[in-house]
Amino acid sequence: MPKIHNFSAGPSILPRQAMEAGSRACLDFNGTGLSLLEMSHRGKEFIGVMDQAISLVKELLGVPSGYSVVFVGGGASLQFAMVPYNLLDEGETAAYLDTGTWANKAIKEANLFGNVKVVASSKDANYNFIPKGYAIPADAKYFHCTSNNTIFGTQMQHFPESPVPVVCDMSSDIFSRPVDVSKFGLIYAGAQKNMGIAGCTMAIIKNDLLGKVKRKIPSMLDYKIHIEGESMYNTPPVFPVYLAMETLKWVKQLGGVNAMQKRNEEKAQRLYTEIDANPLFKGTCAKEDRSRMNVCFVMEKPELEDAFNKAAEAANLSGLKGHRSVGGFRASIYNALELESIDALVAVMRDFARKHG
Amino acid sequence: MPKIHNFSAGPSILPRQAMEAGSRACLDFNGTGLSLLEMSHRGKEFIGVMDQAISLVKELLGVPSGYSVVFVGGGASLQFAMVPYNLLDEGETAAYLDTGTWANKAIKEANLFGNVKVVASSKDANYNFIPKGYAIPADAKYFHCTSNNTIFGTQMQHFPESPVPVVCDMSSDIFSRPVDVSKFGLIYAGAQKNMGIAGCTMAIIKNDLLGKVKRKIPSMLDYKIHIEGESMYNTPPVFPVYLAMETLKWVKQLGGVNAMQKRNEEKAQRLYTEIDANPLFKGTCAKEDRSRMNVCFVMEKPELEDAFNKAAEAANLSGLKGHRSVGGFRASIYNALELESIDALVAVMRDFARKHG
Repeated sequence: MPKIHNFSAGPSILPRQAMEAGSRACLDFNGTGLSLLEMSHRGKEFIGVMDQAISLVKELLGVPSGYSVVFVGGGASLQFAMVPYNLLDEGETAAYLDTGTWANKAIKEANLFGNVKVVASSKDANYNFIPKGYAIPADAKYFHCTSNNTIFGTQMQHFPESPVPVVCDMSSDIFSRPVDVSKFGLIYAGAQKNMGIAGCTMAIIKNDLLGKVKRKIPSMLDYKIHIEGESMYNTPPVFPVYLAMETLKWVKQLGGVNAMQKRNEEKAQRLYTEIDANPLFKGTCAKEDRSRMNVCFVMEKPELEDAFNKAAEAANLSGLKGHRSVGGFRASIYNALELESIDALVAVMRDFARKHG
Repeated sequence: MPKIHNFSAGPSILPRQAMEAGSRACLDFNGTGLSLLEMSHRGKEFIGVMDQAISLVKELLGVPSGYSVVFVGGGASLQFAMVPYNLLDEGETAAYLDTGTWANKAIKEANLFGNVKVVASSKDANYNFIPKGYAIPADAKYFHCTSNNTIFGTQMQHFPESPVPVVCDMSSDIFSRPVDVSKFGLIYAGAQKNMGIAGCTMAIIKNDLLGKVKRKIPSMLDYKIHIEGESMYNTPPVFPVYLAMETLKWVKQLGGVNAMQKRNEEKAQRLYTEIDANPLFKGTCAKEDRSRMNVCFVMEKPELEDAFNKAAEAANLSGLKGHRSVGGFRASIYNALELESIDALVAVMRDFARKHG
């Protein structure tokens, strides 16, 4: 079977070795004679997995002391509620940057718990750029932003100086580049892009932000309880955590987040260069805000889209359809995507231009 | 490698064919050339999985019209909060039956949202029986019970007539026997016993119970949103849902919940018969409330426990250690456990009695 180039926006391509480890673990976990799927999460085998997953997060991102790392279920969408549940009392205000669909969903949930001040939005431009130069109120409880906007293909290349703790949804670019964790109060990310499979979410929390709201927090939504339970307050999503561990092992083997950044920039540059050079295509975002994870582009002549789709399919390029909010195409080029897949896409674009240009 | 008899309380033994399907899906899902782990949840492949999982729940349990079935993340522990979040307004009262650790945790969460009336408790007897003959207040919003108590080895063999909707945590005995869903307002179950692996939870909800509380509900905790989103409001826990589907396919192949009941009663009877006959062992629960899923027993002479543990290990019997709340031993004998594993345990018990009796 020919190789399929997987440009899916998420769940998305993972390192082959992580998927192979998952496949083996389903049958026999490390020679124990039992499948990882049928093991107690309280046994030493899975405790070892959880410990290593958390250690790898700390090591790869250089998490400073005073922060805790947890894996929880529920997806980043649950974090949209957990963040204000834990950090924003009724009557208090949180500042949010509106850069797209997911930022909007986070804002919607925060509105249930306190006041939301949207400091800037690029909604009027269909989110094709990242707002800059906004002021973050010093009396806000925190400032929330989305580092990468999967749907619109924009990415924060810089984070603002903030007078209040910065909370960041890094679901779609975590471990794709170095991050100075000490500049953040809370970072969270659904696993299913660069960190593993759907079903677990990782959060890095500055401990001293917690325990300050007056409301009662349901146990499963309380970061303190997950921290105290070492991500085992309840039965954790065992297999998704294992895949996260295996994926992070691969990130480390390849040289960590600096190596990922180099790899991702090379992939992104090669693809954006073609988009800018090819007369049939154009990018949808402000150049300085272009994402290194999700490359959105449309055709100068939309009537050619179907034909390009067919050409892409014929070349085993999968998952290129753009989100309905933007249209056109989106190549998601997460950590695990190889340069050869970029080259395969570029080759199809060039060939298409020769035939239809 | 000799067969390991897996008596783990959960995550626990699954049908071998489901684990093998999981192993294959990690590498290539149904000949697509892509791993299930790297596929979009919006693609037709996974939509087919989710549809089939939900259909199998409806078919196997005979879910009547007027009910919805959803798969969500977060575990049954999140349901402890979701149930009152959706059903219990501030100032209103819900009735809870206290039959053990998990019932207690459900009560604790409900207390955050409204008033809790504990209608009966077996706490003073270390939960070694299921209370009966209690009254459920007619003005309660709902009555909550736990059908099987994994830790204490008791199981509700009958459900009470209730003047209000019955909400039941069936995490550890769902699909182990027939259930008349029409007698319940809401049933929920973490997957990781009879339904699959840790990381997803299934809920069956009578639609007309929803939308009646005044409070605002965060999206991810709102049953209506999960129902409307067909369990895809956010990225669902793809692989856990797939394993649930494969596990339920196996339940159906073997004859459905009636066949499971027969199989489980035979296993339970064979093991309890040995416990009652063997002079070294005794059961910990009232006989009429004994669980067909978790068989708890202790030794007449506790000083022999270590030696029995060693004998069990030598015979490849795994996961028999009792929960610290009860001590002794617990053999979890969920759907997928084969009769031969019961026979292996009984043989070790008999042999031990011959040597130490």
